[in-house]
Formats: sequence, structure tokens, C-alpha cells
Amino acid sequence: MPPFSFSIEAECPETWARAGTIQTPHGPIHTPIFMPVGTQATVKSVSPEELRAAQAQIILSNTYHLMLRPGSDLIASFGGLHSFMHWDGPILTDSGGFQVWSLGNLRKLNEDGVVFKSHIDGSLHTLTPERVMEIEAELGSDIVLPLDICSPYPCTLAEARKAMEWTHRWEERALVAKERHNPDQTLFGIVQGAFEPELRRESARIIGNMPFKGLSIGGLSVGEPKEQMWGMLRHVTPELPRDKPRHLLGVGSPEDLVEGVGLGMDMFDCVLPTRVARHGGLFTRDGRVSIKGARFRMEHGPIEDGCDCYTCQHYSAAYVHHLARAEEQLYFRLGTIHNIRFMLRLAAELRSSILNGTYVAFREAFLARYVPASEKVREAQREKWKAAREQRQS
Amino acid sequence: MPPFSFSIEAECPETWARAGTIQTPHGPIHTPIFMPVGTQATVKSVSPEELRAAQAQIILSNTYHLMLRPGSDLIASFGGLHSFMHWDGPILTDSGGFQVWSLGNLRKLNEDGVVFKSHIDGSLHTLTPERVMEIEAELGSDIVLPLDICSPYPCTLAEARKAMEWTHRWEERALVAKERHNPDQTLFGIVQGAFEPELRRESARIIGNMPFKGLSIGGLSVGEPKEQMWGMLRHVTPELPRDKPRHLLGVGSPEDLVEGVGLGMDMFDCVLPTRVARHGGLFTRDGRVSIKGARFRMEHGPIEDGCDCYTCQHYSAAYVHHLARAEEQLYFRLGTIHNIRFMLRLAAELRSSILNGTYVAFREAFLARYVPASEKVREAQREKWKAAREQRQS
Repeated sequence: MPPFSFSIEAECPETWARAGTIQTPHGPIHTPIFMPVGTQATVKSVSPEELRAAQAQIILSNTYHLMLRPGSDLIASFGGLHSFMHWDGPILTDSGGFQVWSLGNLRKLNEDGVVFKSHIDGSLHTLTPERVMEIEAELGSDIVLPLDICSPYPCTLAEARKAMEWTHRWEERALVAKERHNPDQTLFGIVQGAFEPELRRESARIIGNMPFKGLSIGGLSVGEPKEQMWGMLRHVTPELPRDKPRHLLGVGSPEDLVEGVGLGMDMFDCVLPTRVARHGGLFTRDGRVSIKGARFRMEHGPIEDGCDCYTCQHYSAAYVHHLARAEEQLYFRLGTIHNIRFMLRLAAELRSSILNGTYVAFREAFLARYVPASEKVREAQREKWKAAREQRQS
Repeated sequence: MPPFSFSIEAECPETWARAGTIQTPHGPIHTPIFMPVGTQATVKSVSPEELRAAQAQIILSNTYHLMLRPGSDLIASFGGLHSFMHWDGPILTDSGGFQVWSLGNLRKLNEDGVVFKSHIDGSLHTLTPERVMEIEAELGSDIVLPLDICSPYPCTLAEARKAMEWTHRWEERALVAKERHNPDQTLFGIVQGAFEPELRRESARIIGNMPFKGLSIGGLSVGEPKEQMWGMLRHVTPELPRDKPRHLLGVGSPEDLVEGVGLGMDMFDCVLPTRVARHGGLFTRDGRVSIKGARFRMEHGPIEDGCDCYTCQHYSAAYVHHLARAEEQLYFRLGTIHNIRFMLRLAAELRSSILNGTYVAFREAFLARYVPASEKVREAQREKWKAAREQRQS
């Protein structure tokens, strides 16, 4: 078996949705797929066995966090991330680029790379396109991403162009470096271009024509209105080669998954499902509910009728409510398992609908029923997380 | 099968150690046994399946906490604690007495009962011997304890006598009330008497002769030097009937389990193994180690060689160290599982040694190797927990 391949099993005639299968050294991934995020070599609060039980097919982990703690050389000495964290399925690692901008204290950016200050202990670190390939080779992930520059939102056209062209040059260097460090890993390219249609199309064409095995769309979901994000994909997707898997970085919510598939995306990752779970927000077909709400106090049924997750199969919503109110650690696990399983079941349903030729009807029915969190709620939540993060770092 | 029985399979000829089997409506318990503590209807950070995998035979839960949140009537409407928390093994619930003194803000103590202020929301609650039996009947636990008064340490002889006699009167009332509320539950008596040998012997004789099915020794491990605790047991045990199981309330550490068995105790419960685990303290045959210590950073082996717990079977000590340093929730679970399994394996080994007639040699070998936490470390830890608790309550 080749270390990586992608085949398309069905395409929606009315949208850009497709159902495919990615082969990796650690097993197949059936797309569309949601990838739970295991930032620090663990998907917060759940075990690898529980991820498997929730039918996770691939997880994402963070180069930035792992290089700082425990260190990629240490992980390499344990045979790589798979054996270190006891997960034998496929792993995608991001490049650390996004975290350098959002978490690290950026000290210097030049053509060679970036120097930043660790958010953990203030130590200085350098990332270059080559060094990122070396780190990801040490991690031994199946799919790796190259160092990129994520423009702030909003930014000027000139800034956006500069960041995009810089990213493209770094990506060329990453392609060369990857062959040196670990030719068996699969390198995806990253499309940038901020919120400029012209740049997005240009980036998609350029990166789409380079010998990457897949394409990640970066720089979206950074605070812009959702409609603006979807607008960018409408420019990007038509420029992308059909035969490479497409990954929408850092997206998203259940409704984002349903929308993104129709805009041609195959892979999604986001901390949102696990993070909102820890704050009490659990997904149902009708929208996100707050398990701490009084309506669940006496609820004998599960969080959602018919849900096949471990939590819903074994516990009443009232018990989960009790654990959440009492801030018991088991709550974080039970809530997280439910939301991960919700996302994975949704991805599987999207796939089935594409295979059956019913994606458009599925999307319509899902969105008609699912009430998304309002922009106001989303904004308040972002502020809360930001404040909590700043407090931890101070 | 009767709802409760106790049989002794072997007794140590040189000490008071015995190996027995308790039958309960939710299955047998082989003694000596350690009971993990599930204060709020969950053993912090572990699932019922993980307790089973660690070979837990019975857990303890807290009447005080459950009556305040979510409420015993609510739990009753879910068919009792077993089905509410998805644990189908035996459960022992304490009476809430100890927590009223240690956590609640005591408002009034009279012959009828106690009025206290909840540590959660400041609301006022009344506990009487009868009300405690009613609450425990609602919880549906297999073994229930009666309301008692735990003397402070130190206290005068007069105070100690008053509290003991008061407790004895309450226990008589509990026996009557239990028959009314749930005759199928098994009520243990509680022996008090503070640190007065005379009172301890008297309490053991009086409670030992009342129609309780087992005996819990209360009021120990409340801050006194360990030698003083063992001294009290030397007075208590000879006065107790041979044919009833004996439970040492709130004890303890691995070395306490080994010592307590020789002094005639069959059942032990304590938050210590799970609490120290959450703070990074993990048990090994050589003593307690701090997993956050630098020596584990690169440790490829498990926390303890030969340990059969889930954690040691699947993860390197270095990975557990990484999770602990990163304050990842999975750490709390992995550490807790290790310590619970350590205590349960130790209890099983103690039982085997009694059955084989080698308890004394086992005790000697264990204590020669196991380095207990020093009194100084224990004191510092208590202060830290106390401060954390006070902060939460303020």
C-alpha cells in the first residue's frame, strides 16, 4: 500500500460535495471527516479507546505545543506521537504557524522564519519552514502541514498579499525539506490570501499546482462573519485540483461541517466541539443545549434521544447535569465524548448522503432544524476564553 | 440469598487479621477491601467501567454531599444511586455526620439532631438519626451508616464522653428508623470515643452488642499521630464481636491498610489515594513518588514495573509525567486509576497472605520497602487542601 492515496467515491451533482477515502500508513479515513483536536498529545479528557469507540478516524495535534512541551525530540525517542500517546490511528499535525501568531509572543519575523516567546515559560524559539519539517518528522504524524503566516483580521490588501507570497515561498522550502527529513510523510499545502477573492484564487492556483498531496485552507474562521468565510471558499474551491483532499483548517461547528462539505471540503478540525462541551454546551439535532440548564435537572432520558455515544447509552441527562453543576471531572469526559460522537456521526451521515445522492436534501433538513449559536453568544464565548487564556498566561 | 451476610475464611494466628466474604444485594465483597470514595456520585475522574477494570468491589458515597446536590429524592426518582451513577456493584454510604462537622457550618446541635448550613449555597438543613435513614433509603445503598458525632481532636474526656453517649442514643434511634424506611438495607454501627481508651472500649462493647450487621470505627484519622490511632484500635478490636465486618472510617494510605488489617479491620475507605493522585502523588512498592518530578521526564517504562493497571499497561511514565505537567485532564484519570488499582491489588495481596498464613511476613516485607510520606509532608498537604477548600467556600 502506498503511504498515502486519495480516491473519490461519489460527487454531488448539485454542489461541490464529495465522498472519498484517504489511505494513510495508520489506516483509512473516510471523508468527509471531522478530526478531534489533541493539542498536547491528548484530546482533552478522553482516552484513545474512547476516541475509537466514538469512531474517530484521525486526530489533529499541534506542533507548536508539542515542540515546547514535552519537545519533539523527546517524542521521537518514544517512537513518535502515535506510540507516545497510545493512538494508532492517523494523525495530522499542523505547522505551529497559527499558534505562533495567536498564542506565542512574536518577537521577529523575517524571510528565514519566526522567533517567538513561549506562552509557557517565556523561552525563545525559532521556527523556519525547514525546522517545522524536522519537528513534524520527529513527531511522525501521517499528514504534516508547512509553516505559514496567518494574516490578522482585518488587514489591508497589501498586508494580505505580502503574507500570502511569503507563505508560498516558505511552502516551497517545506516541500524540499520534507523530502530530506521524512519522505514517507504526506505534506499538505496551505492556501492563504486573507479575505481578498483575488488573492484566494491566486493562492489556490499556485498551491494547488505544487506537488502537495492535499490542501489545507488556512486563515479563515479567525473572527470574521461566517458568510465571509463561505464567500472565500466559493472563490477557492473551483481553483483546487479535484484529486487532492481539502482540509478546512480550524472549522468548526456542526452547521459549519454541513455547509463546508457543500463547498467542497473533505476534512475539518476544530477545538470548538470539545471546548464548548467542557463549558456545558452539548450538541443535539435541534442545536446546542446547555446541560447545566434547569430543564435537565430531572431529565430521565439521555442528552439526545437515539444518540449512540457512550454517554447517552449509559447516563441520564440528569446525571450529566449533576456532574456538570458539581464541576466533576467525569462531566468533562462525558460531555466531550457526546460532542465528538455527534460530529463524527454527522460526518458519516454527510458521507452517506453524498453516496446516496441526497446531500442537498440532508443539508436542508439539518439546517432547518439545527439552531446555531447566535453571533452574540459566539462573541461572548470568545471573549470569555480569551480572558481565561490571558489570566493563565499572566 | 439473604441481603447481607459475612463469613470468615481465615484468621491470622499471630495478629487479628482475617479474610472474609461479605454478601450484598449487589454482589460479594472479599475482605480485606479498600473502598474508593465517590463523594458526589462519581469517583473523581474515573468511570464505573474503569472501577470494575481496577477490580473495585464496593465504593463509598457521601450522604452529606448527595442530600445537598442533586438531592436524595431526585436520586430516588432515578431508581437510587446505583442506576443514577451507572455502578451496579455494592455501595456504602456514610451518614453525613463527619461532613457536617468538617465541611458544613454547624448552626445548632441538640438531642434531636443537627442544623447546618450548606457549604455550597449557605442554605439551612436538618439531619436527625431518622432523617439520615430516610435519605440513605432513598439513595438505596447496600450498607448504610447512622448519624454520629465526631469529636474534635484534641478534646477533653468530658467532651468525648458526651459526644459518644449522644452518638449511642442516636444509633439506637437509627436502628428503629432503618426498619421503617428500608429493612433490606444493612446498617453498620459506629464506634466513637475519641482518644480515650476507656471510652473506646465502652463504645465497642455497647455498639458491638447492638443488632448492627457490621461496625465502623469513627473519629480516627482526624489529625492525630498515626501511632495514637493504632493504639485506639488495640483497645477497640478485642471488644468487637468476631462475626461482624469491621470498617475503619476514612483510612487510609497503603501502609495504613497493611497495619489496619493486622489490627482486625476488614474494610477501609479514604479519599487519600485518589486525592494525592490528582496532585501528582502515585503509589509504588517503594513508596509514593511525584510523577511531576524530573526523573520521569524520559522514563520509557511504566509508573511501576509489573503494575497491571490500565495506565501502566498502556502508557510510559514519561507520557503520564507530560500530562501531569501540562495539567491535562487525562492525567487525573490515569493517576487515579493507578492509585486505585494499587490499593485494590494491595488489599487482594493482604487477603492472599491471610489465606496462606503469611500475613505477618507480608506486612514486614511491605513496610520494610514502602517509604511512607513523612508527617511533615502529610501536614503540609493537609494545610494545602484546607486552604484550597476554604478558598472555594469563600
